[in-house]
Amino acid sequence: MTFLSGIAASNGIAIAKAYRLVEPDLSFEQKTIDDAAAEVERFRQAMNKSKAELEVIRDRAKVDLGEDKAAIFEAHLLVLSDPELNTPIEDKITSENVNAESALKETADMFVMMFEQMDNEYMKERAADIRDVTKRVLSHLLGVQIVNPSMIAEEVIIVAEDLTPSDTAQLNRQFVKGFTTNIGGRTSHSAIMARSLEIPAVVGTKTATEAINNGDFVIVDGLKGEVHINPTPELVEQYRKIHDEYEVQKAEWAKLVNEPTVSADGQHVELVANIGTPNDLKGVIANGGEGVGLYRTEFLYMGRDQLPTEEEQFVAYKAVLEGMTGKPVVVRTLDIGGDKELPYLELPKEMNPFLGFRAIRLCLEEQGIFRTQLRALLRASIYGNLKIMFPMIATLDEFRAAKAILEEEKQKLLAEGQKVAEKIELGIMVEIPSTAILADQFAKEVDFFSIGTNDLIQYTMAADRMNQRVSYLYQPYSPSILRLVKMVIDASHVEGKWTGMCGEMAGDETAIPILLGLGLDEFSMSATSILKARSLIRNLKKSDMEKLAIEVLNMQTTAQVIEAVNLATKL
Amino acid sequence: MTFLSGIAASNGIAIAKAYRLVEPDLSFEQKTIDDAAAEVERFRQAMNKSKAELEVIRDRAKVDLGEDKAAIFEAHLLVLSDPELNTPIEDKITSENVNAESALKETADMFVMMFEQMDNEYMKERAADIRDVTKRVLSHLLGVQIVNPSMIAEEVIIVAEDLTPSDTAQLNRQFVKGFTTNIGGRTSHSAIMARSLEIPAVVGTKTATEAINNGDFVIVDGLKGEVHINPTPELVEQYRKIHDEYEVQKAEWAKLVNEPTVSADGQHVELVANIGTPNDLKGVIANGGEGVGLYRTEFLYMGRDQLPTEEEQFVAYKAVLEGMTGKPVVVRTLDIGGDKELPYLELPKEMNPFLGFRAIRLCLEEQGIFRTQLRALLRASIYGNLKIMFPMIATLDEFRAAKAILEEEKQKLLAEGQKVAEKIELGIMVEIPSTAILADQFAKEVDFFSIGTNDLIQYTMAADRMNQRVSYLYQPYSPSILRLVKMVIDASHVEGKWTGMCGEMAGDETAIPILLGLGLDEFSMSATSILKARSLIRNLKKSDMEKLAIEVLNMQTTAQVIEAVNLATKL
Repeated sequence: MTFLSGIAASNGIAIAKAYRLVEPDLSFEQKTIDDAAAEVERFRQAMNKSKAELEVIRDRAKVDLGEDKAAIFEAHLLVLSDPELNTPIEDKITSENVNAESALKETADMFVMMFEQMDNEYMKERAADIRDVTKRVLSHLLGVQIVNPSMIAEEVIIVAEDLTPSDTAQLNRQFVKGFTTNIGGRTSHSAIMARSLEIPAVVGTKTATEAINNGDFVIVDGLKGEVHINPTPELVEQYRKIHDEYEVQKAEWAKLVNEPTVSADGQHVELVANIGTPNDLKGVIANGGEGVGLYRTEFLYMGRDQLPTEEEQFVAYKAVLEGMTGKPVVVRTLDIGGDKELPYLELPKEMNPFLGFRAIRLCLEEQGIFRTQLRALLRASIYGNLKIMFPMIATLDEFRAAKAILEEEKQKLLAEGQKVAEKIELGIMVEIPSTAILADQFAKEVDFFSIGTNDLIQYTMAADRMNQRVSYLYQPYSPSILRLVKMVIDASHVEGKWTGMCGEMAGDETAIPILLGLGLDEFSMSATSILKARSLIRNLKKSDMEKLAIEVLNMQTTAQVIEAVNLATKL
Repeated sequence: MTFLSGIAASNGIAIAKAYRLVEPDLSFEQKTIDDAAAEVERFRQAMNKSKAELEVIRDRAKVDLGEDKAAIFEAHLLVLSDPELNTPIEDKITSENVNAESALKETADMFVMMFEQMDNEYMKERAADIRDVTKRVLSHLLGVQIVNPSMIAEEVIIVAEDLTPSDTAQLNRQFVKGFTTNIGGRTSHSAIMARSLEIPAVVGTKTATEAINNGDFVIVDGLKGEVHINPTPELVEQYRKIHDEYEVQKAEWAKLVNEPTVSADGQHVELVANIGTPNDLKGVIANGGEGVGLYRTEFLYMGRDQLPTEEEQFVAYKAVLEGMTGKPVVVRTLDIGGDKELPYLELPKEMNPFLGFRAIRLCLEEQGIFRTQLRALLRASIYGNLKIMFPMIATLDEFRAAKAILEEEKQKLLAEGQKVAEKIELGIMVEIPSTAILADQFAKEVDFFSIGTNDLIQYTMAADRMNQRVSYLYQPYSPSILRLVKMVIDASHVEGKWTGMCGEMAGDETAIPILLGLGLDEFSMSATSILKARSLIRNLKKSDMEKLAIEVLNMQTTAQVIEAVNLATKL
């Protein structure tokens, strides 16, 4: 039995067999062989196994993904039967007495290089096919397993270095009970995805892929951030209990779904949800969200090969506004760039993408993209309670420029005879230190602030939140972060405006008491965190939390702040 | 005549012929040729030209750089005479009727691949040699010029995409009169280097390498940030005048070399210099520096293949302390990582190096490196007025950890019977927003602050200062930056400590009036900016600047601040 410690990324307990989503090690040594005929036979067997495997994958792909996507495997099968590739490999084994791995690799590399040098898209694709097929045949020669997440057909826990959006897209939600990764933190893509799928997850274990073998029995404790490998029966029993208790706890929280969010001393705050697509509304409503605090519109632009049209966007925005039946919906305009790339936009590679040309910076330059989105939003505005906010605003000049463009598009629509809601609140994300520091000036011109803590923390601490080596500096409870939050909230209230928070911190148990005390008006979080947060707030007195907030603002370290919160909330 | 506009990176006027430091375009098309014999002859001529060229370079390298460094060119000459490479190329031309470029490239690529795959350092170096030689022969076949800055033997203006430290190391200062680059800003390496060499420079022109041909006559106006290509005789005449006037102005400033830095109403501030090596001390003294405000120790670690020993470092630190004869010397401990790499440390590649594992973060983990430097500093401390500061401090925990290590090394040295100065002031760089915001807490434990504006601005604005597309956000005069500066200065004064500034902003004409008004105690800048700054400060009343400072802190935009400074200083 082995134990790994990581970051609790998504609540719950999962117990199942491990499935390693890891690129296999296909390295080998070049060797001289004695029996060439036997080696040729070994090569042919690997070819046959690859063929059989590919036929299964192709057939399943036809059913699950359609003829279209299955064509790629058809192409791979063609490569496998091509004598132009096979014959020179077998010749090489026989004439040079080298092992099959070497003969395969060298011959295939030659073809790949040849095809890649041709200035022809078709031939370049063939090069990619040969590369893929070579990997597969090599895996059979070496007796290692190539991963294939779409083939998973039993309950598993996924073990990976990290999970990309395309990895998660391939996973069958029915069978994936939990996952654990080597890298990542609470704000990494894999963590956000886990919470939205309500799958327990532990990320940032550093060594999960080393420690866990395929088929190992694994417990993922997404409550404490622990992973147990091949646990004792006693521990499994213990965890089944924890699992059941957690379910009871969830049932308890579920009773709050239609209750208001009021503190123990009767102060109301708004608990709203972060969403990525109209599909997420089900979860928002099921979890008693009082609105949408952050609609990330990027997903409309991702996983496709061209920009979404105004009409496509209009349909999505309308669906969300109607789905929320008059409750507030805060839509963030396109935040692309940084770690979120759109291949079809061909943005230049940057040395520090998190400090680069992204979000509003890109929208103010590529105005065509921006104006299309704003038109779609303005047209949708009459179907609900729309609020628009701009991401990555660093200066008042940027906000004014974005607002002017919105106003222009509004006037154009009205001139065309289209309807637009009379009053649309216009706000900004506060995720750049400069903006928090100048919040008093911004508050004179914006209708609301939404603090994006994921970015605000990484910029304020100058520490990439995706970089393990500096993750110790990602400190949401640092007094410096709390002071910035206070500046923003106070500035908004002076001007009669409101402040929300849509970063991970808004749903964090340790942060919520302080945020309540600082006077935060709106907490936006993963839908699955809402009921737990509501339960917590209903047990806190706002007046006590105000005292706590004043106290922690003058502390020196994160550790002191955590201790003070524990003391104040556990009385 | 053409005109380019860029960023004035280093003062002065330079007029000379252009030398393009640009990788040549070595692309070609594969062609069938009719006369194979003639093509072989063309190939042989290119080989002979390459040989002659390499012999000259080798001979010069022997004289300038020593036998050691010349050996690489000897190796290249060996490759050129190797029949194992030449014969297959000539065979290919004759048997396949392909042009010499294709025959050369394909044959060389094959050898390179072969050698690279071998698990043998020697063979891998041979692969690199073949690659270099192939480039040179190709350049002769294609009739394009390979750049070779060490061969420059007449007065030139360097034109480049950007200049790396190794580029500048190869330049002969005697012949390089100025330079202009496509990318970079006032804080990029090339700009800092230009100021330290006192060479006029205009960076960030975007198109210098496109617009300027080798041999074009070029004026670099480092005062206004303009580049004139093939100017009219009238303009040249005009610029000769500006050049002469600037020399007169410099002579005027030179009279202040032994004067104190006092404002018009009698308030003293300290004007000190940023240096990189003991060699820079000449410039500091010649320009009347009152001390060293930032000794960047990175240069001790760069351009070599292993860490400097304690003894090497001790010698350098002692030289600087003795050279400054008791004047204050602030040494910054190792700030490596980010854009400054040390190949021999094998740091992992990071997605956002500016937000990554660098400076104190690295030193606290790689303590061996840190302790060696601290020991060298402690031992040198008895030779002058040493102050030590730690870079990239984000939390009090980090400062305390670094201080504890320093104290440990001090006790060890004392136990060994070594001498260490009794009182060494211990400070931190304030270049991370978090640290500025918590300056009141830091001020209780540090002896001084030094504000590193280059980084502080880029983090506060979340904009990579090396990235042209977001350079509009690098705003030193933003009210948010000025507010952070005020927080730091005020915090230090409350605790009876002092604050310096060692970023580019400290030497900036528009910033100096505000900084004086905010109460900055020490201004550290390129040595060549000191006299100009002294002249400026002697003309300003601190009491007026205090009013200006209060005014600009409540402004909304950078443009308003600049206007207010112009108004206040031009009365």
